[in-house]
Amino acid sequence: MSPLDQLMKHLARLPGLGPRSARRMVLHLLKRREAVFLPLIDAMSRAAQNVKDCSVCGNLGGADPCEICSDPGRDRSLICVVEDVADLWALERSKAYRGFYHVLGGTLSALEGVRPADLHIDKLVDRVKDSQIKEVILALNATVEGQATAHFVAERLSHTGVTISRLAHGLPVGGELDYLDDGTLTAALKARRMAG
Amino acid sequence: MSPLDQLMKHLARLPGLGPRSARRMVLHLLKRREAVFLPLIDAMSRAAQNVKDCSVCGNLGGADPCEICSDPGRDRSLICVVEDVADLWALERSKAYRGFYHVLGGTLSALEGVRPADLHIDKLVDRVKDSQIKEVILALNATVEGQATAHFVAERLSHTGVTISRLAHGLPVGGELDYLDDGTLTAALKARRMAG
Repeated sequence: MSPLDQLMKHLARLPGLGPRSARRMVLHLLKRREAVFLPLIDAMSRAAQNVKDCSVCGNLGGADPCEICSDPGRDRSLICVVEDVADLWALERSKAYRGFYHVLGGTLSALEGVRPADLHIDKLVDRVKDSQIKEVILALNATVEGQATAHFVAERLSHTGVTISRLAHGLPVGGELDYLDDGTLTAALKARRMAG
Repeated sequence: MSPLDQLMKHLARLPGLGPRSARRMVLHLLKRREAVFLPLIDAMSRAAQNVKDCSVCGNLGGADPCEICSDPGRDRSLICVVEDVADLWALERSKAYRGFYHVLGGTLSALEGVRPADLHIDKLVDRVKDSQIKEVILALNATVEGQATAHFVAERLSHTGVTISRLAHGLPVGGELDYLDDGTLTAALKARRMAG
């Protein structure tokens, strides 16, 4: 197989790309070798070599422990449990949270054969026991698997005496009632708060 | 800027990707360093080093002249003019054409400042003069710029005595009348052929 076909095969398997977008990308890169292609290869090589998994929380970053785990300005009493690094980054972008994180690495799933031992749950329990953590926020996705996992994690933490909380369900900011599903509407109604 | 942010910035500028899909791709790659990320970097490096521009037709491939230009089994009397390498590849995938190609490298555009000298038009005229070419097929896109460029190229070739043809307009195979634009319907009607 030619280097061209090889590269297109590799690119077409990435998430969000297919044969057509991989072809477009390859042409874009080969036409701009000096300006785009070589700097991209360089950035990839540096990321592959230098980005580290944080052995404490599971975040990806330039150091281990990561920038968040080693930040002295963070609230040491809070830990936020997320499924994936992408969720951690989403919370960081919101700038609404200043505690620590714990990345589970997925959700429990009988269908896909993901058992508790496949996720970083034991490590979370150890972290909570060994530190000044007072509250664990379960920020898992509002899917069946996410909620089942949250339930399991809460169970495992119940003997530690730590406060366990979950993200609120409700109307997304900017959301319109007419476009919301019944589940969200029901949750938003149940969790209604006094106005004013 | 960290290697992670650097890589996301580079990826987000590629065609078809944005900040969100670049993030997703980076996480996908960093979680599969050995199986996906390093082989992809390797395939990119090899393509950047080994893929050559064909000095005859403008195709991209493993050699110069390219595999098509140096194929003795091709019909030496035919040359097909396309805007871009992607168009050449599309025609090759169809397996409907067995002549040579000539990539113009774009279309004339007063708006974007693309003049005849920016396209490989002189080179095409030279090729047609110096060879056994009998027919030039103008396979340019059915856009205003594509058709204006086809007209200009035909003009430039008029003194060479070569036959000049264009792709037919009409109903795409599998297409439904109800979804077609008026221009295509008009063209398909005008170019109708006797049934049976």
